[in-house]
Amino acid sequence: MSGSAAPDAFDSRSVILGPRDGRPRLLHTMLRVRDLGASLRFYVEGLGMKELERVEIESRRLTSVFVGFNEDDAGRQLELSAYWDREEPYSHGSGYGHVAISVADVGLAVAKLEALGGAISQSLAPRYANSPLRTVVKDPDGYDVLLVGTGRS
Amino acid sequence: MSGSAAPDAFDSRSVILGPRDGRPRLLHTMLRVRDLGASLRFYVEGLGMKELERVEIESRRLTSVFVGFNEDDAGRQLELSAYWDREEPYSHGSGYGHVAISVADVGLAVAKLEALGGAISQSLAPRYANSPLRTVVKDPDGYDVLLVGTGRS
Repeated sequence: MSGSAAPDAFDSRSVILGPRDGRPRLLHTMLRVRDLGASLRFYVEGLGMKELERVEIESRRLTSVFVGFNEDDAGRQLELSAYWDREEPYSHGSGYGHVAISVADVGLAVAKLEALGGAISQSLAPRYANSPLRTVVKDPDGYDVLLVGTGRS
Repeated sequence: MSGSAAPDAFDSRSVILGPRDGRPRLLHTMLRVRDLGASLRFYVEGLGMKELERVEIESRRLTSVFVGFNEDDAGRQLELSAYWDREEPYSHGSGYGHVAISVADVGLAVAKLEALGGAISQSLAPRYANSPLRTVVKDPDGYDVLLVGTGRS
């Protein structure tokens, strides 16, 4: 397969592009991951996201998986990009922070992620009555994920 | 103001938390920025996003500004976090990729960002007829932003 004929993650895929209504919007956040299986265990099995689209770009030796919570929630997605030949861990600078994800039950989510090998980075006590629970967990590549309870603590 | 009484970015702000309907969703992506003014010129003046919420956390000497395209588009936001005492540039590891943003006219957006001092990182030619235009630009802190046309190229 030649490079120019390789599939393109951004062609004619409404789940990735969002509705073509001319309105600007944030589409997705892309993170490079080393072990796609480990990442999908974390985000899909652990957090309940769905694999919405998988794009294999042979010319770049790259698989990108777009995950999100709802198929109709166009644009609110993570792109997990796994280069087939990547062996060394990705490094993390001081700039990038986190993605925040709301979950129904932070405690339950953390327990599930710990069972899958995830590690809590920081547990944030609620500062007020009725403030949502918040916990930072590290994904398999060490990216911080801020879990925010959708309910009340 | 004591630390425990400091305002909390995640309390009772529906624009940040999204609707409290119990549905999990991606909320925002947080990036640390050194010069909040420069970042807002890029994302607000340059790309047309709106400042939706500004949180000053005096105990952490931190201002966080949540920007997005629509006030009712709960959760699809960037959090720009500026520590008041930060002087040195943030570093970028090899892991974090980009945020993708759809805009009505990629060429116009790039021209505007260049006029504001932004730099094109990579211009991606459309591979197919009718594929959207895509260009990667660097924001003031050097984060890649992938612009994707909402129209047809």
